[in-house]
Amino acid sequence: MIIQLEKGLSEGNKQSIIDKVEALKYKTTEVKTQKGEYIIGIGKKDFDIREIGHMKGISDIHIVSDANMLVSRKWKVKPTVIDLGDGVTIEEGGMALMAGPCSIEGEEQIEKTIAHLKENNIKIMRGGVYKPRSSPYSFRGLGNDGLKTWYKLAREAGIKIITEVMQVSQIEEMYDYVDIYQVGARNTQNFNLLDELGKVDKPVLIKRGISGTIEELLGSAEYVFSAGNENLMLCERGIRTYERASRNTMDINAIAILKEKSHLPVIADPSHGIGIRDHVEPVALACVMAGADGVIYETHEVPEEAWSDGQQTLSFRESEKLIKKLRKTFELRESF
Amino acid sequence: MIIQLEKGLSEGNKQSIIDKVEALKYKTTEVKTQKGEYIIGIGKKDFDIREIGHMKGISDIHIVSDANMLVSRKWKVKPTVIDLGDGVTIEEGGMALMAGPCSIEGEEQIEKTIAHLKENNIKIMRGGVYKPRSSPYSFRGLGNDGLKTWYKLAREAGIKIITEVMQVSQIEEMYDYVDIYQVGARNTQNFNLLDELGKVDKPVLIKRGISGTIEELLGSAEYVFSAGNENLMLCERGIRTYERASRNTMDINAIAILKEKSHLPVIADPSHGIGIRDHVEPVALACVMAGADGVIYETHEVPEEAWSDGQQTLSFRESEKLIKKLRKTFELRESF
Amino acid sequence: MIIQLEKGLSEGNKQSIIDKVEALKYKTTEVKTQKGEYIIGIGKKDFDIREIGHMKGISDIHIVSDANMLVSRKWKVKPTVIDLGDGVTIEEGGMALMAGPCSIEGEEQIEKTIAHLKENNIKIMRGGVYKPRSSPYSFRGLGNDGLKTWYKLAREAGIKIITEVMQVSQIEEMYDYVDIYQVGARNTQNFNLLDELGKVDKPVLIKRGISGTIEELLGSAEYVFSAGNENLMLCERGIRTYERASRNTMDINAIAILKEKSHLPVIADPSHGIGIRDHVEPVALACVMAGADGVIYETHEVPEEAWSDGQQTLSFRESEKLIKKLRKTFELRESF
Amino acid sequence: MIIQLEKGLSEGNKQSIIDKVEALKYKTTEVKTQKGEYIIGIGKKDFDIREIGHMKGISDIHIVSDANMLVSRKWKVKPTVIDLGDGVTIEEGGMALMAGPCSIEGEEQIEKTIAHLKENNIKIMRGGVYKPRSSPYSFRGLGNDGLKTWYKLAREAGIKIITEVMQVSQIEEMYDYVDIYQVGARNTQNFNLLDELGKVDKPVLIKRGISGTIEELLGSAEYVFSAGNENLMLCERGIRTYERASRNTMDINAIAILKEKSHLPVIADPSHGIGIRDHVEPVALACVMAGADGVIYETHEVPEEAWSDGQQTLSFRESEKLIKKLRKTFELRESF
Repeated sequence: MIIQLEKGLSEGNKQSIIDKVEALKYKTTEVKTQKGEYIIGIGKKDFDIREIGHMKGISDIHIVSDANMLVSRKWKVKPTVIDLGDGVTIEEGGMALMAGPCSIEGEEQIEKTIAHLKENNIKIMRGGVYKPRSSPYSFRGLGNDGLKTWYKLAREAGIKIITEVMQVSQIEEMYDYVDIYQVGARNTQNFNLLDELGKVDKPVLIKRGISGTIEELLGSAEYVFSAGNENLMLCERGIRTYERASRNTMDINAIAILKEKSHLPVIADPSHGIGIRDHVEPVALACVMAGADGVIYETHEVPEEAWSDGQQTLSFRESEKLIKKLRKTFELRESF
Repeated sequence: MIIQLEKGLSEGNKQSIIDKVEALKYKTTEVKTQKGEYIIGIGKKDFDIREIGHMKGISDIHIVSDANMLVSRKWKVKPTVIDLGDGVTIEEGGMALMAGPCSIEGEEQIEKTIAHLKENNIKIMRGGVYKPRSSPYSFRGLGNDGLKTWYKLAREAGIKIITEVMQVSQIEEMYDYVDIYQVGARNTQNFNLLDELGKVDKPVLIKRGISGTIEELLGSAEYVFSAGNENLMLCERGIRTYERASRNTMDINAIAILKEKSHLPVIADPSHGIGIRDHVEPVALACVMAGADGVIYETHEVPEEAWSDGQQTLSFRESEKLIKKLRKTFELRESF
Repeated sequence: MIIQLEKGLSEGNKQSIIDKVEALKYKTTEVKTQKGEYIIGIGKKDFDIREIGHMKGISDIHIVSDANMLVSRKWKVKPTVIDLGDGVTIEEGGMALMAGPCSIEGEEQIEKTIAHLKENNIKIMRGGVYKPRSSPYSFRGLGNDGLKTWYKLAREAGIKIITEVMQVSQIEEMYDYVDIYQVGARNTQNFNLLDELGKVDKPVLIKRGISGTIEELLGSAEYVFSAGNENLMLCERGIRTYERASRNTMDINAIAILKEKSHLPVIADPSHGIGIRDHVEPVALACVMAGADGVIYETHEVPEEAWSDGQQTLSFRESEKLIKKLRKTFELRESF
Repeated sequence: MIIQLEKGLSEGNKQSIIDKVEALKYKTTEVKTQKGEYIIGIGKKDFDIREIGHMKGISDIHIVSDANMLVSRKWKVKPTVIDLGDGVTIEEGGMALMAGPCSIEGEEQIEKTIAHLKENNIKIMRGGVYKPRSSPYSFRGLGNDGLKTWYKLAREAGIKIITEVMQVSQIEEMYDYVDIYQVGARNTQNFNLLDELGKVDKPVLIKRGISGTIEELLGSAEYVFSAGNENLMLCERGIRTYERASRNTMDINAIAILKEKSHLPVIADPSHGIGIRDHVEPVALACVMAGADGVIYETHEVPEEAWSDGQQTLSFRESEKLIKKLRKTFELRESF
C-alpha cells in the first residue's frame, strides 16, 4: 500500500500511522521526496482500507499490488510533470525533444549543435562526457572539464543539459552543470548509483538495460523514487535480441506497456533503438505514435566525423526534417 | 546478376544468354513468373556488364549482390502491385487493411465480421481454417468446409479472403476459395511448401518466423519468387525475445529495414506483435508510421468468446476506431 | 488422464470406458500405437480415480496434469527402448552414437564413412539427402536416389540410417530406406508432418526448433505419439540467442530438464549446438555428463571439403578420439 | 601489440620503447600489474616485429590482433595461477571448488557451512553480504558487519572468502576481509568499478553479464588487467534467453570458447546457470567436462529456509555427493 502523508505532519502522527500499518504485519518504508512524503507498506494480508484511511495526517491511501509501487500508475492521478526551470518541462502526454551528439567533442561542436537546436526550438541537448566503452583503450569522454565548457555555452543559450553519470562520485562533481542525469543501459541495475541519485534534487532519466525487462526498468525507477527523487523518466532504447540486421531491437511494445504500468514519462531513443542512420526517422515517428512522451536522438554536424556512434547519428539537415515530422505526428496523436 | 528477358524470346536466344552467363562461371537458374522471365546468375567473378547487356532478348540486366536477389530492391524500379481483382490491390506505398477473427467459427460469425468490414470499407478478411496449435488436443480449425462457407459469404459481399495454408496438399484443396495464401510463422522455413506456392498464380503472404531473421524471411520469399510466383508480401508479426510482458516483441525496425531491402509490400501484424488487446492500437499506428504497406489484425464481435486469441482481438468498436486512426496516420505519412 | 487399455479389449468395453470418462466432462482422444492402446482424457474437474480405475479392460490409469501427456514421465514406469532391429537400440539411460556427414555426397564418401563407423563400432549413420537451405539456390541434397545408394551400402555393412524428412510426401518415398526419420529444427512445428509420422511404424527423432521452447518440443512429440507412433526421440541441438561467438547456444539445461519431464530418449547434437569444429568434443562430453541418452554428430573424411557444415564437422581422426572419450565419460556417469 | 618489459627497466629505456612504438602510429598504454610491466600498442599498420624486438629492456613482444589483448591466450605461454595464499590456488587446468550460501545470514549459518566445507576439503567459501536486488524493498545483505563476522570464522578455519563487491566505495571497506572480489552479473560493465578493482592487489572474479557476450566479458577483464590487476577469473553463469523452463540458459559453449580465447581461469556457476536445485548436479558435471577450471555453487544446510535463492541451493548432503562426482569427473578429464 502507499500512504501519502499530509504536508507538515508531526512525527508523532506519522509514527501512529506506521504503527498501525505494522500492526497489520506490513513492512514499512518511509519515503520523502521533493514533492511529498509517503509510507510504503509491503505485506500479504488483505485488510480493510478504512482501518487506516481515517487516520489523521493521511492525504491519500492506495492499495497497490505491483512490486514497483511508487512508480505504478495505480495510485497517481495527476500527470507527472518534470520541471527543468525556465519553462522547460517533460511531462506525460507531451513530446519533449532532446538532441545532440553521442560524445561532446569540444567548444566548436557544442556551439554548432546549440545553434541547430535553437533554430529548431529544441530546449534540451544530449551528449556524453563520460562514455561507457567495452574496451578500456577507447575514448572515454572529455570528463567534467568538457561538461563545464558545455554548461557555460548551454546556459548562455538557454539550453538544458542531459548527460550520463556513470558512478556515485560523479554525481556531486557534475551536479552544478547538469539538468538531467542519465543512467545508461549498462548501469540500469547499478543499484548503488540509483540509490544515490534518489538523494539528488535533479531529474533522472533511466535507460532500459541492454537486455533488461520492463519489470526491471520499473524496479530501477522504484529505487530512485523510494530513495527520494520523484523527478524521473524512463527510456526505451532497444533491447538485445538474436536479430543482427539492426544494432538493437527497438521494443515499440514497451512504450505502450510502460505508459500503462507507470505514471512516469517515457522517452524513446530511436538512435540506439535501431542504430542505422537512414532508419532513425521512421522509428522515431513510430515511437511517438506508440505514445512516447519524448524522443532523444543523436545529431552531429558531420556524422561521418563524429567521435562515436556516427553510423546512427543524423546530420543537422536530417535532424531538422525529423523535428518537423515529429511535431506533426504528435499533433495527430493529440487529435485522437 | 538478374537478367530480365524480353517477352516471347525464342528458346535459342535464351540459351545463348545462358551459355554466355555460364561462360563467366556463373551458375544459372531460369525463373518464369506470372509477370516475367528471368535468368539468375550466381557467381563470384567480377565482369563487365556490357559483355552481356548488348545481347538480343535482354530487357534489363542488374548486378545484385544480395543473397536474395529477386526480392531485392536493387533491381526493381516500378513499385510492386499485387492485384486481387475487383479493384482490390496491395501495393508498395499503400495501406492495405485486412481484419477478421483468429479462427473461422461458423456462418454467423462470418456474416457479422463481413458486415463490420463492409461498414468500414475494408476489402480483405483474415481468418484461420487450419490452425497450427502446439498441442494436438487443441481445436485445429474448421478445415476446408469452413473455408467453403466463408468463401460463399465473402464473394457475395465482395470481400477477399486471406487464410493460412499449412501443407502442400492443402494448396490445391483451398485454391478455389482463397485470394491470398498465408504462410504462418511456424512454416516460414517450410521450403517444400514455399516451392509449391511458387507454382500457384495466387498471391502469398509470408509471415516472419517466430524467431526468424530478416535475412531468412527474404530467403523464404526468394523461394516462392524463384519458383514462379511474384505476387508476394512479407509480414512482420513480432519475434521471440526474453521479454515476457508481451506475447512477442514487435520488431518495428524490421519494417524499415525490409522496406529498404526488398521491393515487396510489407504488412504489419500488431495483434501477434504485442498480443495484448489494449495495446494493439498504438502498435498498429506505429507500424504505419514506420512505413508498413498494410496492417492485418484480429477482430471479433465478442473477443472474450473467440475460440482462439481472444486476449489480442479487438471488438468491432475498437476495430472501427482503429481503422479511422490508421487512415489518418497513413494520410499524414503520405503528406511527408 | 491417461488410460492404458488391455490388449484385445472389445469395442464395447472400450466404449464403456470412453462414456464414463466423457461423463466426467473430459474430452477423450483414442490413441493406438505400435506398443499399446490408450484413452486420453482432457478436462479440468477433479475426480476420484477409483470411479474409473476398476473398469474392465483398463491395464493402468494415471492422472497427468502436463499439457503433453503421453510423452510425460509421469506415467511411464519402464524405460523407453527404441528397437532398430539387429540388436541396435536407443534407450533411456544408454548412450547411442550416430555419426556421419552433414550431406550425403556419393558412394565413395558413404563407403569411407561406413568404414570409419565400423572400425569404431558405431551402428547408426547420419546424413542428409534432403537439405533445408535458407537460399533456393543452394545445394538441396541428392534426394531419394542418394538415399537408395546409401541404403544399399549401409545394409551390406549392418549400419542403420537416420536422415531428415522434410515433407509428408517424402515419408512414403523414403520408407524402405530409412531406419529413423529425423524432423529438422525448421520443421519441429510442421504439425502436418508430425501427424503423418505418427502413422508410420519407424522411429522418429525430433530436433528442437531453432528457437523452440522445451515445452514446444514436447508438444511436437505429443503430436507424433498421439497419432500412433511411440518410437520417438528428442534432440537438443542448440538454440538461437544473441551470442554470436557460436553458431547456436547449446542448451545443456534442456538435457536435464527433458530427462525429468519426459520418458523419451534425449539425444544431443553438439555439432549444431556449438558449430565450431574445435569445440565439438568438449560440448559432446558435457552433454553425456548432463544425462544425454545419445550423441549425434557430424564427421567427414576431409571436413574442409564437405559440401556443407564443414566448419563444424570432425575429421575421422577427431571422431575416433571423441568416441573413445564419450564411452569413458558414459562409463563414469554409469558408475555414479 | 603487447610488449612485456624487463623487470627494473629504467624510465629512459622505457620511454625509448614507447617513442619507437608511437613512431609506428601506434597508440600506447602503459600497464603495470603485480606480476609485470607492459606496453600496449594499438594501431592498424603492419610492421616488422624486428624493428622493436631487439630493443633494450624488452622481455617479450607479441602481435595480438584481438580487441582484448592482455587477457588473450595469444601471448601467454605459462598457465595463469592465482595464488590465494596458504597453498590455495586457482589455476588453468585445475578444478577449484567454491561453495556456500547465496546470502550470509549470521554466525550459525556461517559455522555450519564452514564445517561442511572442511569435511569435504573445500577451501573457498562463497556468500553475499551486499546483494543486488531488483526491488529496493528486498533484503540487501548484512553488509560489512556480516563480512567481518564471516572473516573471523573463516580465518580460524583456514577458509578463503569470495564475495560480491557492488561499488567503488566498498572496495576499501571490504579489503581486509575478502580473498576474492566478485563482480556480479549486473556490474560486468560497471567500468568504474572494474577500473578501481584493477588497482587492488587481490584477485577478482568477473561474472558474465546477464546478457553479456563472450567478447564483452573479455573486455571487462581487459579493464581490470590493464588497470593493473592480473589476478583475474572469468565466470560463466548462464545467459538470458527466451527459454522459461530454466532461470537462465547455461552457455556451455562459452566455457570452451573462453578457454580458447583467454588464458584466464574460467569458473562455472551451475546454480545460476540453471536455477533449479535438482538439476545443478548434471549441469555442474557437464561444465567440468567442457573444460571449466572451477565450479562455484550455492549450498545451505536447509535450502528451503535460505534467505535467497533457495530454489537453486543444494543441501549439504547434495553438495557432498556433487563434490565427489566433480572430483571423479575432473580426474577423467585429466586422464584424456
